[in-house]
Amino acid sequence: MAGKLDNTGHKVFIGTRNIETTLQRTVGEGFGSPPFSEWHKGHKHLELLTYKDAAARADVLINCTAGMASLQALSIAGADKLNKVLIDIANPLDFSQGFPPSLSVCNTHSLAEEIQAKFPSLRVVKTLNTMSAPVMVNPSAIAGNHAVFLSGNDLEAKNTVKSVLRSLGWKNGQMIDLGDLSTARGTEMLLPVWLRLYGVLGTPMFNFSIALE
Amino acid sequence: MAGKLDNTGHKVFIGTRNIETTLQRTVGEGFGSPPFSEWHKGHKHLELLTYKDAAARADVLINCTAGMASLQALSIAGADKLNKVLIDIANPLDFSQGFPPSLSVCNTHSLAEEIQAKFPSLRVVKTLNTMSAPVMVNPSAIAGNHAVFLSGNDLEAKNTVKSVLRSLGWKNGQMIDLGDLSTARGTEMLLPVWLRLYGVLGTPMFNFSIALE
Repeated sequence: MAGKLDNTGHKVFIGTRNIETTLQRTVGEGFGSPPFSEWHKGHKHLELLTYKDAAARADVLINCTAGMASLQALSIAGADKLNKVLIDIANPLDFSQGFPPSLSVCNTHSLAEEIQAKFPSLRVVKTLNTMSAPVMVNPSAIAGNHAVFLSGNDLEAKNTVKSVLRSLGWKNGQMIDLGDLSTARGTEMLLPVWLRLYGVLGTPMFNFSIALE
Repeated sequence: MAGKLDNTGHKVFIGTRNIETTLQRTVGEGFGSPPFSEWHKGHKHLELLTYKDAAARADVLINCTAGMASLQALSIAGADKLNKVLIDIANPLDFSQGFPPSLSVCNTHSLAEEIQAKFPSLRVVKTLNTMSAPVMVNPSAIAGNHAVFLSGNDLEAKNTVKSVLRSLGWKNGQMIDLGDLSTARGTEMLLPVWLRLYGVLGTPMFNFSIALE
């Protein structure tokens, strides 16, 4: 996400809980990506900051943390004092009972709504959480008019997010605005079938598409 | 469902809790369908029976009841003594708090698994529950290679169900076998986003499709 936004002309600040720990990590982040330090060698101009410093300097925030840790990460970032757009791409996946994970909140709640409730000055927009990271930043790798959903209470914030989505390569016709933030329950609840499809298809390079008459 | 299966050469028995009440109903079943008695005028040769009689006479059972009533309906049908394939197309939608409904079971459970657990002699296959009834019985109305998912523990039962799906007009390439019955959690959890898409699109004539590279 940082690399693609950098490539498309955005100034990107990367936040983490502990800079030293992140730089010392020797394991990649999934889908074949390298450990952070290795990736960072090719992106030295992108500053690695604390959550707090990154959140303070950026105009738009992107929550790319693990869903079970998002509320804590945003607290550390000082999100209670930030009046900014937050793009929430996380999912509340609970791996504590093994694979496949369940959702730690769902049905009558969503992670997106919990973030909005805990940090009311943020303007939370849920999007991109229904696909793998390689698809998020390279939608043209997938054939056809596949979809990216948006949920949020603030129309202006959703317009800001649509502009970020266009930077990532998404076309307006692929964006489906589902309505207010409670609709994020629906998109977070796509994860269980996404995980099973990943198992059946054997690749994370797929996405949901809505077929019409 | 009854009409389409009848049209394609199957012998169909329709079961209901109370035959008189069903015939006296004056309201349709949604998506513009007429009340049962009106529809039945054009399908007089299809017998309306009690749940028990219909379930006893049919080779393959289809659970087309409301999800919140399915366990009770199957009890009345005597499903504890039936060693048959059950095609479960219901969803556990709870409308008690208004619209949109929540799911009465989800995440770590599914209606399909509850049916299988309560009636172990049935061979439950979950399918068709991720779309509106008009799409279930007329898949060619929707453009492109949109999907119908299958979940079930018995491979032979899934093959039987695939043959029923072909009767309804589904092609083999549209059928995605997700695995055992626990994968029905994922497809039942598609309902919340389905309901929101129905609101945004203004029509039930759509379906999920899986877009690939």
